This record gives sequence, structure tokens and C-alpha cells, in this order.
Amino acid sequence: MCELLAMSANTPTDLCFSFTGLARRGGAVGPHRDGWGVAFYEGRGVRVFHDPSASADSPIAEVVRTHPIKSLAAICHIRQANVGRVGLENTHPFIRELWGRYWSFAHNGQLPDFRARPGVYQPVGDTDSENIFCDLLNRIRADHGPDDPDEALLETIVQASAEYARERVFNLLLSNGHWVFTFCTTRLVAITRRAPFGPAQLKDADVTVDFEAVTTPSDVVSVIATEPLTRDEQWDTYQPGEWRLWRDGLVVASGVESIPTWVHPD
Amino acid sequence: MCELLAMSANTPTDLCFSFTGLARRGGAVGPHRDGWGVAFYEGRGVRVFHDPSASADSPIAEVVRTHPIKSLAAICHIRQANVGRVGLENTHPFIRELWGRYWSFAHNGQLPDFRARPGVYQPVGDTDSENIFCDLLNRIRADHGPDDPDEALLETIVQASAEYARERVFNLLLSNGHWVFTFCTTRLVAITRRAPFGPAQLKDADVTVDFEAVTTPSDVVSVIATEPLTRDEQWDTYQPGEWRLWRDGLVVASGVESIPTWVHPD
Repeated sequence: MCELLAMSANTPTDLCFSFTGLARRGGAVGPHRDGWGVAFYEGRGVRVFHDPSASADSPIAEVVRTHPIKSLAAICHIRQANVGRVGLENTHPFIRELWGRYWSFAHNGQLPDFRARPGVYQPVGDTDSENIFCDLLNRIRADHGPDDPDEALLETIVQASAEYARERVFNLLLSNGHWVFTFCTTRLVAITRRAPFGPAQLKDADVTVDFEAVTTPSDVVSVIATEPLTRDEQWDTYQPGEWRLWRDGLVVASGVESIPTWVHPD
Repeated sequence: MCELLAMSANTPTDLCFSFTGLARRGGAVGPHRDGWGVAFYEGRGVRVFHDPSASADSPIAEVVRTHPIKSLAAICHIRQANVGRVGLENTHPFIRELWGRYWSFAHNGQLPDFRARPGVYQPVGDTDSENIFCDLLNRIRADHGPDDPDEALLETIVQASAEYARERVFNLLLSNGHWVFTFCTTRLVAITRRAPFGPAQLKDADVTVDFEAVTTPSDVVSVIATEPLTRDEQWDTYQPGEWRLWRDGLVVASGVESIPTWVHPD
């Protein structure tokens, strides 16, 4: 099983606090020691860190924890391998360029025999996750053009996600820098922080932050994760089949798809 | 003007020594403070670091300098912007997936009005360099298939490079992880280190390494750069129009194309 983390904000915001908590689960307080990765969007660019070793003791993860990289949209993944060997090529998030934007994808769950249908995008590694990502982009490219509105793309993305989720567990983070799309079959929670800001304490490390001191009153910052990262805040739990499209820190579209209940979700 | 650095080796080798010298030119002993980036291939995967700030005082560059990331093929770039604003989306090396492999591209020179011909790959930023990369990949995809041998791809790459170089300055590093292709119009030098190894001292920092202590007798490691990085070794200078294909530390193919002499090379 893997763990997911995403952020959507209306002002460039760093991920240091949340990443500090998540990274502890990569080999210190959790078993996800088979690599980690994060994608931070900055304007049209994306800054990506991938490391096939445990985040809890990775020097690169330490830089990400301690060096504030500010972004409106970021997605992150720590891996406990099931399909595909431990290696850089199998480390999420996966990135591809589509119509002059970088798309990034991180996934938790498994569709072990899934293979991308033929198209422009091909997997480099051998995970089910990267196969699904390529399949999804091939489908978007086949059904749409670069000038199609987000609403049209969203319809395809939701429909494809529901199909993947009917096959097996499929918790998804997908971003093109404009927005962050999230889909839950079994485990996703979210929190939106806005004024009045208060303090928060991580569950997995002895770290507290006073958001009041590091924000302005107009800031809106949402964090989406597999499990709550803080012990003293109220996180909102996605329903099975629920999807939400985040932009500038807020949900701008959402819905619930009908999917099976998985008895062994991981 | 920008500076380029590439490595090709027959055994996984880190770039710490060479990168330490190059990074000093990004704002300390050189003017290339408009960003830097590096791509390290590890198996089929690629580990990429991009930073739009000066390498000389970047905390991320410090990790790359001090944390040995071992690779058979790596390419690196430090930027002094001319075409395209300073920003993450314009920071080399650029990466795209083609036929299930990651291709990376770094370029020095300028073709200010160059626009990629239409195709699957589109630039995200607004540099001439990324336009050329997309143009080249679109051309490879149009003229070849995934099972074509390297020799066939090479013919297209050489021909396209010579065309770009006839328009303006075009010093190129291109890799797909299997090999590193290099093309020179004005400035590229190379060195191949193999047994008996000796010591070497950087030109740009007070750092000496004893390669004998960190290698085995069968290691072959070549470094290609815009300017020699060491003061006490003999670097071999490319001719204008010369290209070399490196694999496992050695030149496996090379040639010289006829190109104009540029009076104002930068």
C-alpha cells in the first residue's frame, strides 16, 4: 500500500509541514520504504524529485522537508511496492507532457494485470500505475483537443477513473498545474485551511506549526492525503467513488461514481 | 551563454566532482545564474533536478554536489538566459518520453525564432531550446518506429542537428539513457578517464580528487563539457560540426558535418 499527498492553494505555499509528516511514514513510523516522489508546479514548470530509497532517511527528502518550495499545486507519493520492482523508473509521480503542459500522476491501489491501450504514451517502468496513467492520457488525447474546456476533459477523466475503480482499488492524484483531480475508492481525506488560521500538530512527528504566523488572511490552502497528517484538526473523509477537482485551494467540481466495495482494499 | 556537462560511463559513477566545478560557474566564478538542471539515468528511470536559481548557492545543488547519485549517463546545464524568461519551465534539461524511454536534452546557443514543427511533442516554456527538442522528437517519431536500430535514429539526429547548426549556434547534449549524443558548433571538450587513474584538480574550486582511490581498473568514465573543468588534465576539443555518440564511456560513432563558422558564436 502506498500513501498519497496533494496540495491545492490560492497563493504559492510550501509543503514542508505536510511532507515532514508523510516522509516519516516512509520507513520511520510507516512501512513505505520503497521510494518516494513529489511534483511541485511553479507557473507552467514542474519541479520533480524522485528517490527509490526510503523518505525517512533520504538526504533529498531532507532538502524537500527543509527548503520551502512554493507552489499552487503539488502531488506526492511514498511507495510500498506491490506491482513492479523497487527502482527509479517505478517511482511516482509519473510525468508526461500533453498539449504543452506537464501532467503528473500518483496512485495508490493495484490493478495488477492492467496494460495501457496503444497510443502516444507508453510506460517506461513496469507498474500498473504508470500503465493506467498512459492509458488515461492516450484516452484524453484520442477524445479531445488542446482547446477543449476543462469540463470536457473532466468528463473523460471521471469516466475513466470510475472504470479503473470498478476493476480494483484506485485512489488517484492527477494534476496539470491548473488543477488537482482526486478520486477515491478506499482512502482519501482532505482539509481546507483558511482564516482564522490556528496551530496544528503532526501525527507522525513532534512538529507543530502556527499557520496564523505563516499565512495572510486571504490564503486558502487545501491538503488531500491517504490519512490525516495532523492530530488536532478535523479532516473530511471522501466517500468510496467520490471525486473532487481542486483549484486555488477549493473544490470546483465534485461527484460520486458508483463503484464496488473492495473487501481487501489494499 | 550557457554551460553544458555530460557523463558517459561503463560503471555507475557519480558526477559530484565535475558538478562541483560546473556549479561554481552558476553565479560564483561565472555568470550563469539563471537556473540549472541535471538528469541522471538509473536503469530505465531518470532522476531530474531543476532549479531556476543560481547553482552556486542553491541548497538543491548542494545535495547534488555532496550526495553521490550513480549513473551510466547524465546530462547537466547551467543557464544564462537569452531566449525565454528565467523560470522553471525554461530550465534545461528538458525531458520527454518516447517509445517507453525518457529522452533528455540540454542545449547551448540560440535559434531565437525557431518554432517546433507540429507533432505530438509541444514545448511547455518559451525557449528556442525546448522548441528544438520537440521538433527533433517529432521528427524521430515521424521517421522511425520503436524497433528501429540506433544507427537509423542516429542518421536522423545527425541530419537534424546539422540543419539546426546551419541556422545558428547549436551545441547539444541528448540522451535516452542508452547513449549520450553530443554535437558541437562552437564549444565542446571531452576527456576519457581510465586506468591508470591519477589525481585531478578543478579549475573553478579548490578541490582535488584522486580517481585511483574511487575507481576500479576496468572503469571507463568520460566527461563532456563546454570548457575543461580541470586544470591538470588534457581535454580533447571538438571541431565545429563534430558529433560523437557516447556509450559506456566510449565514443561508439562520430563524424563531422559541414556547418558555417559563426562570427558571434554566443
